Amino acid sequence: MNRDRSKQRLKLKGLKKKANPNDLISLNYLKLQPTSSIHPDPAPVIHRRSSTDCIHRQSSTAAAHPRRYAQPLLESCFKNKALLSFMDAVKNLDAVDATTSFQVKSFFDSAPLLKDAESISRKLTQFIHQNASLTGSKGPRRVVCVTSGGTTVPLEQRCVRYIDNFSSGHRGATSTEYFLKSGYSVIFLYRRGTCQPYCRSLPDDPLLECFNLTSDSSIQVLESHAEAVKSAISGHHDVVSGGYLLKLPFTTIFEYLQILRLIATPMKILGPNAMFYLAAAVSDFYVPWESMAVHKIQSASGPLDMRLAQVPKMLLVLRKEWAPTAFCVSFKLETDKEILLEKADTALKKYKMHAVVANELSTRKEVVILVTESGKVSVYRENDLSVVESPLIKLLVEKHSTYIMDPNA
Amino acid sequence: MNRDRSKQRLKLKGLKKKANPNDLISLNYLKLQPTSSIHPDPAPVIHRRSSTDCIHRQSSTAAAHPRRYAQPLLESCFKNKALLSFMDAVKNLDAVDATTSFQVKSFFDSAPLLKDAESISRKLTQFIHQNASLTGSKGPRRVVCVTSGGTTVPLEQRCVRYIDNFSSGHRGATSTEYFLKSGYSVIFLYRRGTCQPYCRSLPDDPLLECFNLTSDSSIQVLESHAEAVKSAISGHHDVVSGGYLLKLPFTTIFEYLQILRLIATPMKILGPNAMFYLAAAVSDFYVPWESMAVHKIQSASGPLDMRLAQVPKMLLVLRKEWAPTAFCVSFKLETDKEILLEKADTALKKYKMHAVVANELSTRKEVVILVTESGKVSVYRENDLSVVESPLIKLLVEKHSTYIMDPNA
Repeated sequence: MNRDRSKQRLKLKGLKKKANPNDLISLNYLKLQPTSSIHPDPAPVIHRRSSTDCIHRQSSTAAAHPRRYAQPLLESCFKNKALLSFMDAVKNLDAVDATTSFQVKSFFDSAPLLKDAESISRKLTQFIHQNASLTGSKGPRRVVCVTSGGTTVPLEQRCVRYIDNFSSGHRGATSTEYFLKSGYSVIFLYRRGTCQPYCRSLPDDPLLECFNLTSDSSIQVLESHAEAVKSAISGHHDVVSGGYLLKLPFTTIFEYLQILRLIATPMKILGPNAMFYLAAAVSDFYVPWESMAVHKIQSASGPLDMRLAQVPKMLLVLRKEWAPTAFCVSFKLETDKEILLEKADTALKKYKMHAVVANELSTRKEVVILVTESGKVSVYRENDLSVVESPLIKLLVEKHSTYIMDPNA
Repeated sequence: MNRDRSKQRLKLKGLKKKANPNDLISLNYLKLQPTSSIHPDPAPVIHRRSSTDCIHRQSSTAAAHPRRYAQPLLESCFKNKALLSFMDAVKNLDAVDATTSFQVKSFFDSAPLLKDAESISRKLTQFIHQNASLTGSKGPRRVVCVTSGGTTVPLEQRCVRYIDNFSSGHRGATSTEYFLKSGYSVIFLYRRGTCQPYCRSLPDDPLLECFNLTSDSSIQVLESHAEAVKSAISGHHDVVSGGYLLKLPFTTIFEYLQILRLIATPMKILGPNAMFYLAAAVSDFYVPWESMAVHKIQSASGPLDMRLAQVPKMLLVLRKEWAPTAFCVSFKLETDKEILLEKADTALKKYKMHAVVANELSTRKEVVILVTESGKVSVYRENDLSVVESPLIKLLVEKHSTYIMDPNA
């Protein structure tokens, strides 16, 4: 980190003879966004543009008086820990790690406190220690953290509206089943209300659709759903009571990233036997908590303008700091297949993933492409009745085995 | 409608000697928003601002050359049916109805086609006709359309991200139970995955949490949940198979409003015996389908700017055009109690509702305020074990009875 910061200063020096924070601000001023931290009077990131004013008022004022605004920016950055705009200013200076670390710190500092953090940590430590002590024919038991479903981004502190990411959670739930079948223990970090392991053959509302009452008022499962209901209950019950599956729910991006960090810490003791399988659809953009409107945004008149900040790219932080010895698999979902593989390649290199699963929205149930340093492999489901997660997890387990043999290869 | 348009022209004449569409545009130019319809080259409403440019480019260009942009605007409005910006221009001209009608037309014209519209219509007609023929001791059977849960606003056509409205659907589901208990038949228009009638005492994941398998592999309900499970299954089954409850799911704002319109049409035959109880959390802002990014928005660099258009206020259209004889109840949810009653009053007058249920996010389960023309009544739940919907529905049924006796009072 220190090395990266010097690098950043060096780069600056190449551009300006004397580099100090003020120079940095003025140099990059035009790249700054007119958010609350620029203006001395904080304004929410979500705001309504005046109907008689086509020009962003803050930006035009700021553009006319860069110096007047630069100093308050610098001060408010450090006073309020609202470093995001500052980060915008330095992000092109080839100092990815310093920038990311700053952004990550800022994100966690401003995030609302995670409820039940202690109880979650206790469950995690117990689960991981218990599984770390198990050894099978193939060596120590492996543990995978499977993330599943989409994260939400609240738009108000007393949240009425939020941005959500489409994800049924089928990929994560199904993959969990195949990991368990392959002898892994699973920490299932899932979005509340999304698909659960062993439940994918059930209808949307299993209780109301699978059961009825007999004439003597006892509950009876409908014959058509009996097998699906039985396998859901027994499959689920076996792995939970056996201590092989730990389920942790999330809703917001703030909860997700805080729990993910909590998971990574005790998983370090597993060394290369740990895997992260990051199938959750994580928000790319968010409203920093401190810039968020407290109350419901009013809809009295005119359109709504929103400025969303980028969520720091946590994959690199996970890989480098939180879980440096684990085998890490991320996902890349696109709707445009033209850019899919290029984006997957970039993720592999930029975030140092061991594998990236590339999938296109419309065909994601039939085929995925596994991108690793050694190449790209298309993985198809065997037939219409099977699922693509079956061959995918088989392939990943093999790659994980190779990695365990020689993590530095 | 024609009368309102003349009124609008008249108003314009008062301001400018000769009123024609071009005058209207130039007169209101500064009130126009720089959306795609202003610029001859359509641009998506969601866009990334250039990091080197603090000023909205389109707006500054447009402001410098109003005439150059005015004509293409007018043309594109009528060519593309993208009337929203045009509506912004005329919205302060005291022509609420003409404006709303235009916005509504534009909304429905640009909405993606509703799947299963025919099948939904068929179900509705059958349900309403069947219930219209029933008469009890209190006269013809009443039918209420209860809307429940939040609508989503897609941000991309091949949707990965969307804006959602927080709503568990408890209010709608519980109210449905009390309407049924009061002898109403219910069309339950609900968001997929939200709370269902008779299921509010169940845990989040009833199948996995309420059942286990016996040693001989038969399914068994846990004693602790037996009553809740039985009353959910039997309560639900009785009203659905009896033909008193019709459930119709939605997800997006486009689906919700299209289905609501489909419901209103056949409900007209019920006259004042029909009620609309609009408890759904409906999006206030949306991205018009034709302005929406086709593919997933890329998150490569920098913050994201979004411009969301206002969803036309459909309450007035429902009340005046879709369901002119029905008893209409809307909801007003706020997080700030200071403005709650004022907003509820406005909704009552502006949208000609018969009653508005005002509720504050943090206390919504304990108390609501029923706002009608005759005053405001605070409605409390009786005790911690009861629900506020019980006295609320009782009061609304009384008000509905009075209305049926004299709809024009």
